[in-house]
Amino acid sequence: MNAPLPTELLQQVRPVPAAMLEALRARFGERCSTAAAVREQHGRDESPYPVTPPEVVVFCESTEDVAAVVKLADQHAVPVIPFGVGSSLEGHLLAVQGGVSIDLGRMDRVVRVHPEDLTATVQAGVTREQLNREIRDSGLFFPIDPGANASIGGMAATRASGTNAVRYGTMRENVLALTVVTAAGEVIHTGTRAKKSSAGYDLTRLFVGSEGTLGVMTEITVKLYPLPEAVSAAICQFPSVDAAVRTTIAVIQMGVPIARCELLDANAVRAVNKHSNLSLQESPMLLMEFHGSEAGVQEQAQTVQDIAREFGGTDFQWATTPEERTKLWTARHKAYFAALQTRPGCRCQAGDACVPISRLAECINESVADSEAAGIPYWVVGHVGDGNFHLSYLLDPNDADEAARVEALNVKMVQRAQRLEGTCTGEHGIGLHKIGYLVDETGEGAVAMMKTIKRALDPKNIMNPGKVLAI
Amino acid sequence: MNAPLPTELLQQVRPVPAAMLEALRARFGERCSTAAAVREQHGRDESPYPVTPPEVVVFCESTEDVAAVVKLADQHAVPVIPFGVGSSLEGHLLAVQGGVSIDLGRMDRVVRVHPEDLTATVQAGVTREQLNREIRDSGLFFPIDPGANASIGGMAATRASGTNAVRYGTMRENVLALTVVTAAGEVIHTGTRAKKSSAGYDLTRLFVGSEGTLGVMTEITVKLYPLPEAVSAAICQFPSVDAAVRTTIAVIQMGVPIARCELLDANAVRAVNKHSNLSLQESPMLLMEFHGSEAGVQEQAQTVQDIAREFGGTDFQWATTPEERTKLWTARHKAYFAALQTRPGCRCQAGDACVPISRLAECINESVADSEAAGIPYWVVGHVGDGNFHLSYLLDPNDADEAARVEALNVKMVQRAQRLEGTCTGEHGIGLHKIGYLVDETGEGAVAMMKTIKRALDPKNIMNPGKVLAI
Repeated sequence: MNAPLPTELLQQVRPVPAAMLEALRARFGERCSTAAAVREQHGRDESPYPVTPPEVVVFCESTEDVAAVVKLADQHAVPVIPFGVGSSLEGHLLAVQGGVSIDLGRMDRVVRVHPEDLTATVQAGVTREQLNREIRDSGLFFPIDPGANASIGGMAATRASGTNAVRYGTMRENVLALTVVTAAGEVIHTGTRAKKSSAGYDLTRLFVGSEGTLGVMTEITVKLYPLPEAVSAAICQFPSVDAAVRTTIAVIQMGVPIARCELLDANAVRAVNKHSNLSLQESPMLLMEFHGSEAGVQEQAQTVQDIAREFGGTDFQWATTPEERTKLWTARHKAYFAALQTRPGCRCQAGDACVPISRLAECINESVADSEAAGIPYWVVGHVGDGNFHLSYLLDPNDADEAARVEALNVKMVQRAQRLEGTCTGEHGIGLHKIGYLVDETGEGAVAMMKTIKRALDPKNIMNPGKVLAI
Repeated sequence: MNAPLPTELLQQVRPVPAAMLEALRARFGERCSTAAAVREQHGRDESPYPVTPPEVVVFCESTEDVAAVVKLADQHAVPVIPFGVGSSLEGHLLAVQGGVSIDLGRMDRVVRVHPEDLTATVQAGVTREQLNREIRDSGLFFPIDPGANASIGGMAATRASGTNAVRYGTMRENVLALTVVTAAGEVIHTGTRAKKSSAGYDLTRLFVGSEGTLGVMTEITVKLYPLPEAVSAAICQFPSVDAAVRTTIAVIQMGVPIARCELLDANAVRAVNKHSNLSLQESPMLLMEFHGSEAGVQEQAQTVQDIAREFGGTDFQWATTPEERTKLWTARHKAYFAALQTRPGCRCQAGDACVPISRLAECINESVADSEAAGIPYWVVGHVGDGNFHLSYLLDPNDADEAARVEALNVKMVQRAQRLEGTCTGEHGIGLHKIGYLVDETGEGAVAMMKTIKRALDPKNIMNPGKVLAI
């Protein structure tokens, strides 16, 4: 058994009429598939929900392709669900009301790079690793790094962030402009390549984080950054999670421009050691990275080392060569899969609380204490420089009782984060899972306004229905 | 004669019914005014448009006050126009359809400062200088600096930025959460104090930059920053505007984290010298500021000095004491009034183009050449690190022909900026003046979507009607 889906949604499945299927086949040929394996692959993500396949999958290769699918969907009032690489965590991709999955994976072209302006325009299916590979020779990089090699479109849709956000911001700050297919199948452009603008409503940021419920982003213009002159990564071990977090709080409050500041608890380090064949000391640690000039990096590191010592942190262990750094960060990025392997056959439910930095120690400590008391396997990683952490549980998919207990723990953590003036999701999004938490967090009035916008822009409710707002 | 107002708007004046006026007087007493002087003061801004007063002005002191006015306005379908300090530049505050001006100037309370989280929550009428005065002892500052001592509410409404944006971002990046009175007079909250969030549609950024057309922002939670350990300001003169701009482009492309990078052309320097009794060399100059550690500031400055020399820049003249720096920045901030005084009786029309950084030299050079050829007094200042500059003209208000020629020059500059993938407004907003430019820039489709949102959230069109979208 998996986590239960909201049953009221499943009662609203809207079948794809034969006429629409015919029209899709006529236009897309083999790029339109109803094969069970293809549908299943598009009816799941990394959430613990059961596979909920769409009726049809269409592999789009251009904005015009997407517009053609959405026009048909509009005509027949059938749901469409944009699909990138399938790495989302909250049920975003599940076809709870049936319909068509628009696979954007073949829209994988870096359309334009303007190194002289520090911008790039990419198709929605380009992944972050691909973009960084393609611009490597320009001396620039795209910093947003949610761990998974997600598509830039998917990252924009969930307002993703990750390890570098503490210094470079999230997708909110790093998307300059979009090409969007609206719910009517029209193509619009939001924003320009100018770094800032006061020209009208911020449609760009309305779509960033809208999880496919307002339209399909097909091209994304993002900011790039010059590769820093010097990069250095360091590990520091602490006697407790609390000590690591308090170090982080002090670093942020002092304004140190740290580029990455990642917490791993002992459980996470243990899993990473096993999976990546490392021998890190199995205690809470910060994995940090410093960007700047040679002197600047040294200065930052010295400041952080001094703070860490006050909280019982060890001497930094350095990774200065690109190879050493890559090894460490690869291990960090594999923490999710590493942890999954510690309990064979399990699935993962990842929490995603984010609180004002001064409340972080309280929020993590109490949540960890609850998890210890419950005795369900868990681990903690966190982009703690932003006040964001993931307390993740390893679930036995055949144990309904365990799923319920995990959800109860999660609710408690979310309520704690909200009481501390934080949010139920720092970067994963609402999806199917957090619809109720969103109401608790922002209030009925704000959610009513979101629904008004959704109904105005998508009157037939065909854009990824059931997500974010349960309409 | 002033710049002509769009006549179709003026035909839609909606009178305040006696019953509404009575209800306002009953609730607000002397805080509800129909005195001519008060109305006139609220019917103008710094744009060259003629005074267009509201019928009534209400001085609000709380979110509840604002909600009460908007509820009445909703009931009687009467326009409301939020008013801060009146420093906007594009006709935002003019009561083109009559109605009620909501003066937020008495909502001047810094509600909460959380120094440990680097956040502050302020009422909409708090000015940026006031906020910085009140938090001075905390070791923090609020960086957004549009020049005028604007209200934070007004700055949020126009998505303002200014001199520090090159390093610290604009209001888009620095507003975390809002309290908003909707068009129905309901109070909603958007966002939390967490630094990032993926919880639902980004209502915060929908309101930031909406120029009062979607609701009234009454409380704003903003990010603060630790005062840098070291601050240093420097002046560098150049043989041409082009040389100064090319220096800036190189600085940005190298990723130097410069905190301020302001261009003044010789005309602007001349006006500033006269107004502020300075003796700056009257040639194009960059006024720069560096923030960081002592060593970091020196390193940045050295890099920029090296680049500047390549383009014929002089040795830096330094202002390292707070007093010297304040003198320089005050002079810079008074450039607008200084220039106005060079042509007695004139009014100013300020351009606000913003382009990708590599296009900046071309955009400024061609626009300056047009201005020289036209023979109308002008000056240029610019937040050039962001690709944003203001080519401003001094207009004889009694010369309709001159107004038309200036507008023609402005149109040419806007079209040039848009052709170079930039925007018609980097920070001043659309107001009444740039409604047509917005359509040119973003296209009919995006503007249609903005109108759909406006109609959905404000079905009676009472929120600052006629601005941004001409509805």
